Amino acid sequence: MTSSFGISVRAGGAKVAFSALRGTNHEPSDLSNKSLTIYFDQVLVNIGNHFDLQESAFQAPRRGIYSFSFHVVKVYNRQTIQVNLMHNEYPIISAFAGDQDVTREAASNSVLLHLEQEDKLYLKLERGNLMGGWRYSTFSGFLVFPL
Amino acid sequence: MTSSFGISVRAGGAKVAFSALRGTNHEPSDLSNKSLTIYFDQVLVNIGNHFDLQESAFQAPRRGIYSFSFHVVKVYNRQTIQVNLMHNEYPIISAFAGDQDVTREAASNSVLLHLEQEDKLYLKLERGNLMGGWRYSTFSGFLVFPL
Amino acid sequence: MTSSFGISVRAGGAKVAFSALRGTNHEPSDLSNKSLTIYFDQVLVNIGNHFDLQESAFQAPRRGIYSFSFHVVKVYNRQTIQVNLMHNEYPIISAFAGDQDVTREAASNSVLLHLEQEDKLYLKLERGNLMGGWRYSTFSGFLVFPL
Repeated sequence: MTSSFGISVRAGGAKVAFSALRGTNHEPSDLSNKSLTIYFDQVLVNIGNHFDLQESAFQAPRRGIYSFSFHVVKVYNRQTIQVNLMHNEYPIISAFAGDQDVTREAASNSVLLHLEQEDKLYLKLERGNLMGGWRYSTFSGFLVFPL
Repeated sequence: MTSSFGISVRAGGAKVAFSALRGTNHEPSDLSNKSLTIYFDQVLVNIGNHFDLQESAFQAPRRGIYSFSFHVVKVYNRQTIQVNLMHNEYPIISAFAGDQDVTREAASNSVLLHLEQEDKLYLKLERGNLMGGWRYSTFSGFLVFPL
Repeated sequence: MTSSFGISVRAGGAKVAFSALRGTNHEPSDLSNKSLTIYFDQVLVNIGNHFDLQESAFQAPRRGIYSFSFHVVKVYNRQTIQVNLMHNEYPIISAFAGDQDVTREAASNSVLLHLEQEDKLYLKLERGNLMGGWRYSTFSGFLVFPL
């Protein structure tokens, strides 16, 4: 677990991290139009495999303090968007982007949360639309420490 | 401290994290008008209890490298705001929001800092006003590792 | 390595963190004009000394999951900027700032990455210019855990 070579002992079960990206600018799928979930199409990091790309949701493998950051980029449209970070269907924090004359603008926020095992986190479009797609959007999280 | 079950050994004193939120949109109090501190009204995480909600300030319990992120949302007004992350009365980083035709816009930044025990961190409105309130604002931090 | 006093055992080699700041608003140097690298002029944190201020690049000392955040502030100009986080000359994520009537606006994003030893990370101006300087910009990263 620990060694005299300075190797971290944050062993197996405490190594939890994901980072997802929107690489294409396609219109939202039917699924997305119904659930208003913000879907990603690339996974950069998925240690422990707790982020499900299909659902674009993270499920906590254990109790602990987690860090989450998101940046949802809207492509040119004149609507204001509101993006919520959802914790088991309950909105925790929001972010906004609403400029009229900008081509790409991000709704960003970040937070630390106390999660129980199996808690689910995902992003939801609460207001506005992402008709032009949301390429360059990111969603990342990691276990800061278990409890 | 460490175990063969993969439990992290980042024990007691190294588990430091807070995350605060502005949930109401009330006008700044007299206190806030004088000190220009950005006050929060909800604590999502406060491991070790080093974030004082009343003061809306974090006090480092030990020497180490800490991560801080903030997103201060201004509600529709035509002024530019500048928000500073203060480290013992000294401004470390700034963030700006100044769009004219947006209803909600965040002044955001993040940083890692080397803190000594008892160092105090808080957010200050350096320029502009938050007359309409600052609902949806967040302020988070955690100990990355002790030194 | 570990102790009964609750001291973290994330020892030597696992303590990697940097945070850099643009404190002056000088025009980009000739070097910057050619490479389009976003250069910083202050280091707040540099544990392990893996961020080279001259190059304004971070080089990973070991394999692991790293967190990166950046906020590049453009001073009043009417161009849209695009900033890329570069991983060994390959763009990983982008951020945008493009408002027409704002004095200071940040192009921000954050991500977790799986790095190999000696991988290099830096910020590049992909589009637009930073003629007025980029004071208040930040670039931070740390090793979340080694692999």
